[in-house]
Amino acid sequence: MTCEESTPDTDPVPWRTLERTVVFEPDGGRYLTVEQHVVELPDGQVIDDWLWLRTPAFVNVLVQTADHDFLVFRQTKYAVDGLTLAVVGGYVEPGEDPAVAAGREVLEETGWRPTEVRSLGSYPVDGNRGAGVAHLFLATGAQPVPAAQRLVSDDLEDQVLVRMDRTELEAAVLRGDFKVVSWSATIALGLLTLDKSN
Amino acid sequence: MTCEESTPDTDPVPWRTLERTVVFEPDGGRYLTVEQHVVELPDGQVIDDWLWLRTPAFVNVLVQTADHDFLVFRQTKYAVDGLTLAVVGGYVEPGEDPAVAAGREVLEETGWRPTEVRSLGSYPVDGNRGAGVAHLFLATGAQPVPAAQRLVSDDLEDQVLVRMDRTELEAAVLRGDFKVVSWSATIALGLLTLDKSN
Repeated sequence: MTCEESTPDTDPVPWRTLERTVVFEPDGGRYLTVEQHVVELPDGQVIDDWLWLRTPAFVNVLVQTADHDFLVFRQTKYAVDGLTLAVVGGYVEPGEDPAVAAGREVLEETGWRPTEVRSLGSYPVDGNRGAGVAHLFLATGAQPVPAAQRLVSDDLEDQVLVRMDRTELEAAVLRGDFKVVSWSATIALGLLTLDKSN
Repeated sequence: MTCEESTPDTDPVPWRTLERTVVFEPDGGRYLTVEQHVVELPDGQVIDDWLWLRTPAFVNVLVQTADHDFLVFRQTKYAVDGLTLAVVGGYVEPGEDPAVAAGREVLEETGWRPTEVRSLGSYPVDGNRGAGVAHLFLATGAQPVPAAQRLVSDDLEDQVLVRMDRTELEAAVLRGDFKVVSWSATIALGLLTLDKSN
């Protein structure tokens, strides 16, 4: 059952971008470019200083092992006070397919290789300003690979690999222990997806 | 069952912020301030140009009616191509309690008043750069208020109020129809929380 409580004559109409100007771009835009857009609203109103953030796309991955546990990290993260739990994550490299990036990051960060990587959706991080795209994934059937085949992670943060069962993971995400919004989204969407397919 | 796969001698140590400099602040920082931080890593390495984004805190709210349907919107959003489904959302006003902002936004945007507003956690939007804090909520027991008591929304986007049952909402969020990462997080965390309390 889906029903509309209010019924306008037509669907909402997207805004139109009339012009884009780069207004701030440190380090050649490696991590951040700020643009100013001239935007036209459906009623004809024009906003001439709408801020738009370009930052690198990234992946976050919930990893389930072949025996149905989950692999996460206890780590620090610059935007978080103290310790946090975290999922696998990293930037998508230029030209790289996000699903390939997801598999690569799982192997680099955990030393485990999944048998399946499923998309949980791709989402702008900030609905108004962009701020990059989060590609969320569920990786299943993961098994440890011999040390010699492991890739080396380039993460700056220290992290401790933690293995949790389903009950503990759900309790942790509902306590807010995964302290970045895309990490919580990845886990909650991943758990709902697994419930659905059981 | 929680166990650590790797066992370092000590917990990971957070980075230290040694200095903050504002490097870009259009319109007095109303919507965006870019800072550059000098940061010291646990191994003594110093990064002298770590970018940090200050943007306004916001709330997102999953609204359940007294008879257990959900209130969402079909709307446009600047960072999204075409139409998207959305949850209630808005900026927290200066000095305002996020839970109060959540209740206010529900009433402004839907014309319904919840009997309970529960936190689903507060999360930095970008784990590396900050980019504001998302305060996520589940509002339950909502009932329509008479038109004379309604507040007026200041949202720039057109939106159509849509009522969905649980099955339809879960299908929509797993299809990726809620096209901003904090919206998907709100719904998935909200549904897991409701499952838990049933």
